Formats: sequence, structure tokens, C-alpha cells
Amino acid sequence: MVELAEKPRGRRGRRGAQRTGEAGQNDHLRVPFISRRIPTYDILSEDSLAQIEATAERIMAEIGIEFREDPETVALFRAAGAEVAELTSDSWNLKFAPGLIRQILKTAPARFTQHARNPANTVEIGGDAMVFAPSYGSPFVMDLDKGRRYGTIEDFQNFVKLAQMSPNLHHSGGTICEPTDVAVNKRHLDMVYAHIRYSDRAFLGSITAPERAEDSIEMCRILFGADFVDENCVIMGNFNTTSPLVIDGITSRGIRAYAAAGQGSIHLPFLLGGAVAPLTMAGSLAQCLAESMVSCAITQLVRPGAPCVLASFISSMSLRSGSPTFGTPEPALASLAMGQLARRLNLPLRCAGNFSTSKLPDAQGMQQSMMSMMSAVQCGANYILHSAGFLDGLLSMSYEKFILDADLCGALHAYLKGFEVNEDTLGFDALAEGGPGEHLFSTQHTLRHYQTAYWDSAVDDHQPWETWDEQGGVDAATRANARWKAQLAAYEAPALDEGMDEALQDFITRKKAEMPDAWY
Amino acid sequence: MVELAEKPRGRRGRRGAQRTGEAGQNDHLRVPFISRRIPTYDILSEDSLAQIEATAERIMAEIGIEFREDPETVALFRAAGAEVAELTSDSWNLKFAPGLIRQILKTAPARFTQHARNPANTVEIGGDAMVFAPSYGSPFVMDLDKGRRYGTIEDFQNFVKLAQMSPNLHHSGGTICEPTDVAVNKRHLDMVYAHIRYSDRAFLGSITAPERAEDSIEMCRILFGADFVDENCVIMGNFNTTSPLVIDGITSRGIRAYAAAGQGSIHLPFLLGGAVAPLTMAGSLAQCLAESMVSCAITQLVRPGAPCVLASFISSMSLRSGSPTFGTPEPALASLAMGQLARRLNLPLRCAGNFSTSKLPDAQGMQQSMMSMMSAVQCGANYILHSAGFLDGLLSMSYEKFILDADLCGALHAYLKGFEVNEDTLGFDALAEGGPGEHLFSTQHTLRHYQTAYWDSAVDDHQPWETWDEQGGVDAATRANARWKAQLAAYEAPALDEGMDEALQDFITRKKAEMPDAWY
Repeated sequence: MVELAEKPRGRRGRRGAQRTGEAGQNDHLRVPFISRRIPTYDILSEDSLAQIEATAERIMAEIGIEFREDPETVALFRAAGAEVAELTSDSWNLKFAPGLIRQILKTAPARFTQHARNPANTVEIGGDAMVFAPSYGSPFVMDLDKGRRYGTIEDFQNFVKLAQMSPNLHHSGGTICEPTDVAVNKRHLDMVYAHIRYSDRAFLGSITAPERAEDSIEMCRILFGADFVDENCVIMGNFNTTSPLVIDGITSRGIRAYAAAGQGSIHLPFLLGGAVAPLTMAGSLAQCLAESMVSCAITQLVRPGAPCVLASFISSMSLRSGSPTFGTPEPALASLAMGQLARRLNLPLRCAGNFSTSKLPDAQGMQQSMMSMMSAVQCGANYILHSAGFLDGLLSMSYEKFILDADLCGALHAYLKGFEVNEDTLGFDALAEGGPGEHLFSTQHTLRHYQTAYWDSAVDDHQPWETWDEQGGVDAATRANARWKAQLAAYEAPALDEGMDEALQDFITRKKAEMPDAWY
Repeated sequence: MVELAEKPRGRRGRRGAQRTGEAGQNDHLRVPFISRRIPTYDILSEDSLAQIEATAERIMAEIGIEFREDPETVALFRAAGAEVAELTSDSWNLKFAPGLIRQILKTAPARFTQHARNPANTVEIGGDAMVFAPSYGSPFVMDLDKGRRYGTIEDFQNFVKLAQMSPNLHHSGGTICEPTDVAVNKRHLDMVYAHIRYSDRAFLGSITAPERAEDSIEMCRILFGADFVDENCVIMGNFNTTSPLVIDGITSRGIRAYAAAGQGSIHLPFLLGGAVAPLTMAGSLAQCLAESMVSCAITQLVRPGAPCVLASFISSMSLRSGSPTFGTPEPALASLAMGQLARRLNLPLRCAGNFSTSKLPDAQGMQQSMMSMMSAVQCGANYILHSAGFLDGLLSMSYEKFILDADLCGALHAYLKGFEVNEDTLGFDALAEGGPGEHLFSTQHTLRHYQTAYWDSAVDDHQPWETWDEQGGVDAATRANARWKAQLAAYEAPALDEGMDEALQDFITRKKAEMPDAWY
């Protein structure tokens, strides 16, 4: 291996001045979002897909979706042709004739742009575009030093900073962790501010109450200008149906708020098979499609052309305890099929992510993550929330897992780029140069491709065992622990106009002063 | 979650008598080998594949393959039409006109059977059949208690036992680790005996010298009877080319020994891009195809119809140290393409495995493994060596990684089975039964599918954090450590006829007495 070690070393020395030198940067792969260059992995036949779609139509037409506490949404659907049955004074069952929802969704864009305050970080969502965003919604955070505890606004800010520093993520996400030290009715203000202040990427706004959705959008009007916001998507809300087959008023009113402002929304059924959905994948998919399609349709009734994202979060359960399980094979298959269904509907898709039930950033954590995340990228999902940090069945956001996942996201940049087949990459001349038995270290072909041929990990150890052992013999989680601390220590906030910052802070101060703290 | 916990518990109690109760058994998924039910993941276009094939033909026709120290193989190729140039008194460059090797390979079977001494464990190799075998060839072994040390025959036997006990592996493999406490010229006898004595699955024989290959086959004649061996494949040899573009005499003579006996052989170029192959994937693939095709062709010249397996082990290197890297994205893509090339050639394929450069059964270990192993199963590889135990860039066989990998192989059984779409699995009636807002825990559909809907891991932890924490808060590697010890403690050897055992031992005793120990 002497030759191997020497040739590249010479080149590294020469290029050192041009590169940051920091591991894991992969400048040749840097993009504001990924444009997938490999085909999707399509596992279901046309016939199977048609059967799932037909069952989704039957669910919408024969069982219906229940709406609660939002007569305005019910009125919109009634006007569009839905069959409405009043269940109580504030709940309704809505049935949709076959094809009705699909027809309503025809005005939804197949691909749209979400603007970031730094235009270089603006992302596209749909088609062959893919966007990685941090995990979302954990009440707890954990790291190897302090273990598991409730998340705080400081943790939240830390994760926004770590995401901003990662060349492998594209979006700042939303509720990266719950900042439980801030009142529930005020924390959305601090979260949106953190995304704006500590990141210059696109992000998600609040969905926990319609007025919090409005606040989130209003802060974007301060940042981007009201006219720009009216004409462009600058924020999105991530909404959950109440499975099976219910959309509550908080959700539908929030969806209407985003759509009315021309902003994006994601429509996610969280389907735990056997609990809130059939536990067979075909049934989970039909239900997921029905729920997400109806939820998406709200946006088009409010404002035709408003961006909306079909979504899927199909999970399994332990046969022993009944607990939800993540990163298992059956939901990975369902994700692949969901990609096919979304393309047939011509809507962008949010799907899967780096899911795990492990309580540590260990072998289980990354094995499960990989099984889930590979399905996300192979199915052609366009917006992949939960791309970094997910542990403990989504109950905890892990600092170390965030680093490991973000590194994996880097590998996926190389994976999704595929490889070219042409005279240069076929390398016949390089092989012919030396012929049988001759190494290729010093061929022009090797020297020309050396810096960009392979993805460069920031945390994996590729050293000989002896070197690794001499350096302490630490595992990947321990390296990730050192890395997030080093990253936070090196973090520099992106520039933000002072006047803008003051205006945002004034808005927050005023809003907070308007209401007493509430913890629900 | 009360309902969820209660319903299944009742069912588990009722079924307890019928099941082992042991986690990870997945009786509904048990098979002697996998029949892949999902499509392969095809990433290259017909045009790109044709370009790679054309380059492979150019390599064979214009650069040629160098053979060393085996005039008989050279004579066979000369008779078949190869253009032979003598380089030295014992080395030759052979060039093959475009299409010649492909023509010779037409007699090779697309799919064949390898018999196990227990007929229930007989495997098929080729087509949609997939066989998982343990890792192969590490000089070191490691576990969490004793760290890394040279492998011994006891370690070797332990891994044979662990493989035999796993419902997720199908084949006993070959040199699971090097038994360095046995003389090099004798260890093949102890290894083959261990596979026969401690397992009743199919296995690989020795390839380190032609006479050791003959010994391996002779032991099979004792076990299966000489007539049966002449008519059936009962053992295979795993051969490496000497890349780039060399096949040495030890290798070609070993290949001839297996082929002459009608036994199987695997033909593997180990291509480290930039060192012994072009570092662009297209070039690595063309070279891999050329080397493996020529190596396979030897078998058909010796005995047309002898089983042979195309193989691929394309790896990357660290941009920093020049060290080989495993489980990275570029080789995963190459594996997917290799599956396409093998199908066009109509030959079985060995490809990828649970590769990693990690020195521990940690997050890196399983992330890299997953990226590599997913490519193996998605490309439709038929024989997947290195399915369990691979760490340290193949230098170490890990007891804990073996357990984690075997568990992952279980998940892949569920994955490769895909899922059915039919009236039952679409579950419309189950959803309609309760309607919106009603859980599905107690529907007939849920109860009917509950036991088989989801894969059941033997090592993953899906418990609530609190329970996991109370039980010691251990990581996956620690659970795997406990599991391999428990497995070995519970191991029972499969029955072996005493007369047969004696005959095998007599053979070994006689062979060992015939020669002094040699350590090369």
C-alpha cells in the first residue's frame, strides 16, 4: 500500500490551499437541494397501484372523512360537491364521489419553489428535486453527556445552528425539538425567530393553532415583504390528519391559513398499522392516500394553485409489546409504493426519514435509519423531514444522531447523483496504459478524478485498526459527540439586517405581551 | 395504548405453545433460501449497459488477461480460439475476440442447486433465488470482551455454530475467519470438517492450493458419495482474480479442480478503484465484467455446464489516506448496475454484503453495512457472501456484528417478500367496520394478520425509554454480545452419522500425517 499512500498525499498537499481541509465538506456535491439523477425504485405493478387508488376512492366515497369544529371547510367541500352528513353540532362526515378529490387537486402544483432569505438556499419541492430537513417534534433531547431531558429553546437554537452548518441538509425544518421552557402559546414565535436568525435556509412555521400559523406567516411578511409573500411560497406548515379518517378543526383551519396566504402545506397521516390503519401495507397505503388527498384538497378550495405536499408516515408495531416500531422493512416497502402513487397523482411527496426506535446513536439507530431513509430517497420523496436527529421513536432529538444522520445525508448526495457512463468514465485508456498487473495510482485518469470520485465522510473512521486503537479506539457516537460540540463552537450566524431583526423582535415582544402564558 | 397491549397479549398467550417464543424467529418468513418477490432496482439505461459491455469486450480483446503458471488453462483457451502471447516461460497474455468469452459462457447454468447434507437446507443459486452466507477471510476476530486477536479454529467453529442457529442465513460460508492456530497447509481440513460437523447447510471449500481444493471435494465425496458429487453441486470455491487483469496459476488450477468435479465456483475481482481499477464506477464495472467473465469461462472449457458465479466487489478509497473504504455510496451504485449486467449475461451473481470499515459494531458499522447490503439485495444478487460479521475492512470477524448482521438479514427476508395487494390486504372492510375515529385493534383483519404482519427483531429494542433505562440502558452491541454467548450456550449440533464422522476424521488424520506443518 506504499504507492497508494504516497501518490494521493502529494496531491492533497497541492490542493490544501484551495480547500477548507475539513472532512465531510464534499464541495463537488454541494447543492441547495438535490436533483435526483437515478431512477426511482418502483416495486408495485400498475394493476396493484390501480387497486390501491380504487380503494382510496372507495374510502372517500363510502366511508368518508370526518371534519370537526370547522364549518367553513365543510362549506367549501359542500360547494365543491361533497355529500355532507351532520354528525353533531360541530362534526360532519363528508363523502366524496369517485374522482372528485382527484379533480380538485388538478390545480395543485407538481413542483414549486420555497424561498429562503438567502436566495442561494432557495429550494424546489417536487419532480426530481429532493430536500433534506432535520427531525421534527420531539419533546425530549439527548446527548451522550447529559442523557435524556426535555428540550429547551437553547437546544432548539443549537439544532438550527447545526443544521445551518451542515452542507448535507437543505432546509431548517420546523419544530426541531419542543422548547418546553417557553409557554406553549408563545414558543412558535421563538421557534420561527430562531429559524430566521440562526439560519438562512427555508423553514416550517407553526401549526398548533390557526393564530400561531398566522403569526408565523406574518413574521415572514416582515422578513420578505408582504407583496413577495403573497406571490411566493416562503414558509410551509406540516399538518397531521387524526387517523383514521378524521381532520380536526385546528388542523383544517391551520391549513386554510397557509393556503389563503399562498403558502405551502404538508398533509401527513401518521398511520400505525393495526392501531389507526389496517396493518397490511396495501390497506395502510389506500388509507394514507385518501386522508392525504382530502387534506391537500382543502388548500385548492381555499386558493387554487397553493402549494401542497402529499405525505406518508406508515409505521409498524412490535409483535411483542404493541409499541410502534420504526425503520422496519414493511414500512420501507410502503414508502417505495407511496412514491409511485404520488407521481401518478402529480403531487410532491414527503415520505419517511431517518427513523429509529433506538434510545442511543448506536448500531440499531443507524441500521433502522438506513432502512427507512433509503426508502425515502429511492421512492423519489421530495421533502424528507426527519432527515437528522431522530431517535427514541421520535420522542427524542439526539445531538449525536443528528451528526451521524447529516453525514449519511451527505452520502446520499453522492448516491442520488448516480454515475455517468462515457468514454472518460469507462477508463479504457487508463487500464490499457499499464496493462495487466500494473496499478493505476499514477494514471492521468486517477489523478484527474481523485478528488471527486468518492464521497468523503466527516465522522466515519477508515484508518487502519492500529491507528484507530492508538487514537483511543472510540466509536462513531463518541466522534459525533465531539463533532457537534466543535460545530457549535465554530458556528457563525449568517448576516441579518439589523432593522429587520429589530422589527421581528418588536413583533415578538408585542405578541407575547398580548397574552398570558398558557401551557396547552 | 391499553387496548393495543391487551389484545395482542391474549393472542400471544394462545400461540405460546406453538412457538419457541424466542425473539427473531419469524417462522412465517423461514425459507432455505429467499425467492425475491420484489423487482430489482435497475439504475442504468440499456445504452449505458451496452457501453460497459462493449468496453469489457475491448478489454478482453485489446488488453487481454495475463495467466501465470498454468499452461493447461492457457492451452484450453488457445484451443477455444484465444490469441496467446507468451510473456515469459510461465506467463501468457491471452486476448479474446469480441463475443468469444460470452459464447463460451453460454453453457453455464443461469441457476443451479447446491446440495446441503440436510436436504431441507439445500439452496438454489441464480434467478430470483438469494442466499445469505457469513463473512469470509478475516485473519482477526473481535468481540467486546476480548477485543481484537488472531482467529483460531475455536472461533471458526463458533461462527459455524452461530450461522447454523440463525434462521436468517442460508449457507455456512467458507473461511469464516482464518484459524491461525492450525498450519496453513492443514487448516482447510479442519475448516471443511467444522462446516460438515457443526452445520448441516451448504458451504464453500478451500481455494488456497489446488490440492486443498481436491481435499475439500474429496471430503464431500465421503459425505455425499462419489456418484452423487459427480452429478450434483455440493461444494463451491470462491476465487479471486489478481486485479488488474491477471489470473494466477493457483487460482486457475483451483477453478479447474472444482469445475472438473462438477462443483461450483465464484469468480471475484476485488477492485479498489484508483489502485487496481479505474476509480470511476463505469470503468470498474467494465473491468469487473471482463475479469469475472474470463475467470468463469475457464469452468466451461473444463466441463461445460459446471456451475459458476459471476462476482463483483467494487470498493472505494478514502480521499485523505488512500485506504480502502466500504459501505460507501459509489460502490452501492456499482452493485446495482452489476445486477443488471449479470442478468444480461444470464449468470448467477455474487455481489456486495454487510461491508464496513468500522472497528466496532457501532453506528458506522451498521450504517455502512446497510448501504452495501441494500445494494446487494436490490440488485438481485444470488449469493451474498459477507452477509454477517464483517468489520474492520474485512480484517476482523466480529461476534457482535455477526448477530446484528444476521438480524438485519432477517429484516431483508420481509423486505424481499414484498407485499400483496388484494381485497384482503387492502383492508377496506376493516376500515369501514369502525369508520372515522375508531381504532382497528380488535378488527378481525388485525387479529388475522397480527402475528405475521411485521418482522420481529431478535436484538432491536422497541420498548419505551423508561423501561429500557430501568433495564440498564444498554446499546445494541451490548445486547448482541449477550446474544452470541446465549446462542453458543444453547447450540446443539445437527445429527451426523457416526460412521460418516469417523470416515471424515480418518481422512483428515491421514492427510495431516502425510505432510509436515507449513505456515504459508
